[in-house]
Amino acid sequence: MKTADRMDETLIEVPRGLANVVVAETALSEVRGMEGFYHYRGYPATELARHRSVEDVWALLLDGELPDEHAAAAFSAEVAAASAVSSELADRLRFIGESTRATDVMGGLRAAVALEGARIGLRPVYDLSPAQRRRQLIEIAAKVPGMIAALSRARAGHDIVAPRPELGYVANYLYQLHGEVPAPERVTALSAYLVAAIDHGLNASTFTARVIASTGADVASCLTGALGALSGPLHGGAPSRVLDTLDAIGSPANIDNWVIGRLTRGERIMGFGHPVYRTEDPRSALLKEVARGFGGQRVELAIAVEERIPALLDRYKPGRVLRTNVEWYAAIVMELCGLSRELFTPTFAVARVLGWTANILEQSRDPKIIRPASRYVGPTPPLAVPDATPPDKPGA
Amino acid sequence: MKTADRMDETLIEVPRGLANVVVAETALSEVRGMEGFYHYRGYPATELARHRSVEDVWALLLDGELPDEHAAAAFSAEVAAASAVSSELADRLRFIGESTRATDVMGGLRAAVALEGARIGLRPVYDLSPAQRRRQLIEIAAKVPGMIAALSRARAGHDIVAPRPELGYVANYLYQLHGEVPAPERVTALSAYLVAAIDHGLNASTFTARVIASTGADVASCLTGALGALSGPLHGGAPSRVLDTLDAIGSPANIDNWVIGRLTRGERIMGFGHPVYRTEDPRSALLKEVARGFGGQRVELAIAVEERIPALLDRYKPGRVLRTNVEWYAAIVMELCGLSRELFTPTFAVARVLGWTANILEQSRDPKIIRPASRYVGPTPPLAVPDATPPDKPGA
Repeated sequence: MKTADRMDETLIEVPRGLANVVVAETALSEVRGMEGFYHYRGYPATELARHRSVEDVWALLLDGELPDEHAAAAFSAEVAAASAVSSELADRLRFIGESTRATDVMGGLRAAVALEGARIGLRPVYDLSPAQRRRQLIEIAAKVPGMIAALSRARAGHDIVAPRPELGYVANYLYQLHGEVPAPERVTALSAYLVAAIDHGLNASTFTARVIASTGADVASCLTGALGALSGPLHGGAPSRVLDTLDAIGSPANIDNWVIGRLTRGERIMGFGHPVYRTEDPRSALLKEVARGFGGQRVELAIAVEERIPALLDRYKPGRVLRTNVEWYAAIVMELCGLSRELFTPTFAVARVLGWTANILEQSRDPKIIRPASRYVGPTPPLAVPDATPPDKPGA
Repeated sequence: MKTADRMDETLIEVPRGLANVVVAETALSEVRGMEGFYHYRGYPATELARHRSVEDVWALLLDGELPDEHAAAAFSAEVAAASAVSSELADRLRFIGESTRATDVMGGLRAAVALEGARIGLRPVYDLSPAQRRRQLIEIAAKVPGMIAALSRARAGHDIVAPRPELGYVANYLYQLHGEVPAPERVTALSAYLVAAIDHGLNASTFTARVIASTGADVASCLTGALGALSGPLHGGAPSRVLDTLDAIGSPANIDNWVIGRLTRGERIMGFGHPVYRTEDPRSALLKEVARGFGGQRVELAIAVEERIPALLDRYKPGRVLRTNVEWYAAIVMELCGLSRELFTPTFAVARVLGWTANILEQSRDPKIIRPASRYVGPTPPLAVPDATPPDKPGA
């Protein structure tokens, strides 16, 4: 990483999609695919998900340390203050919610973050101190759960619900969505999912946030771009399809029939397979445990499908391994927490936006633009330009 | 580029900022820094800027060929139809313009593109045919000049001006901004700048658009993210500072004094220096010629500064070379075309958004997510998680 800035024209070839190509040094998270392990700043992420609040883990990622009781209370108060929905923001969310009924909540959320950033007038990150960047990131990111709730309610014609200061971050998200204080087991389950989903190496949305941050753009530009990337089906856009799969299978008696059909037609099974983990996805193991805590037919069917697949693969695709990824049980946990399917990807965003804030903060300490190269494979220049039309004919 | 998908954990180290690292094959544009040359699909870009309209060059990049007279008329008609501002969009632009008086036009534009994309309900690119992707890209991108004009007018409390179908793309942009049909020399000059600025290798905003496209996100997500990157001062955010520089210098008599001060304090001079070009920036040469066509004190001062700097460098920073980049004369050309400083970066976006559309179209033919890696440099895992706070206390 010590190469001089000067660009000569020797292109460097790397694997497609930049797989394994190091674009940043980070002290935030690491994914060890061969070990089925990932951590945040050295702490196993699934242990954090079991034992610490979303606020505590956000503070860990942003500020470098798990807060003690005093620091945790101060950070939670800071987050609660930032998550308040002003009447001006509420007006805008109502307007956006009504404008975007034709699309999904992610589109409205992207517009809401873009507009709120522009409304409050952010400055380029390089014009700010690290403390100012941190405050602006918290200001925007802490509003994301309330924005999602308001957009979801506005689309359905319901009133916007203000957060209650005595509730925590996760409880308030469910409260603002549904207008009632959620059951404690739902809060605990959703908290585990959210903590586990905050960060995960240089995924495409986190990378997007870092590329935009590297230009010195304001923090809302970074977060808006990352939300766009997260909305892509190859990244964050498919968890609800897991439930479609379970609906299609219907009952344990139909598992073999359905799975064999998919396998023999060479079709993907949503919620299975991950490009990084070579062993069990640790997020899947955590969320299976959380789902088991709820029990019920849906959970039993999901477990039965997971457990049946290795035997079917042995028979129909020998040598192939297919394990559940984070989406399989995440979809079930979100459903058990009372979230409708259109809220699955936005809820993933509630978690991942916290990781983006820490990544943007880290990236903006390095004032070096990310500007890769392409290899030109088109017609050989210089071609002669035929002088067919004048450049522009005003009033013609 | 033929490496298998499978990620093992061997990290690949590359230069900082991905300099010279090939992330895509492209048939769109190529920058040859050592030669001071760049081209679009084989045609020298500055020749296109001199002889062809913005619409023709957009068609070239999108569809692969410079259109003949018939095809050019058809494409211009398609673009003109897409650039119409519906009353629904006008309402939203008024709302966003009034909401974003505290910030710059880029913030409002980012929100407008995000909201319009969500309002019309786009689908993920991988769910669309190439023809559908192309149509959606034109639908959004063709509205960008009108969006900028409307936002700029709404911020100033003026009415929105509808485009006139008989005017070309560039003339309509100026017409919608100022409410009067622009002088032909302004249209020709601005057209040259815009064509020259449409594409330029894998710059940070184009790369952002491609990363988001690689997730399969909808085209508005790609364009919104790219707008965010373009707003960063290290990428597209500094052209207006060139005029600040000329204002600070004031007159030819003050050039030496001012430049020597900057050089000896080791400060950057806005509009000078480029990471890629080792010789004259061909865009600078083109725009100098365009500016000369207008003449006047401002142009003469800019040329005098450019011509004086080599001698001053020889004396105060021997061995250093500093040439004008695209911004130096672009700022002057935009000012001569009647654009206010806050419109310089948005006007750059009017051009570059057309390049993004072609890049998104090209990227979305390759269904491979761009997902790089990071190198972890934080505390060694696994650290024990202290069980300080319960995960979340609803109603506590």
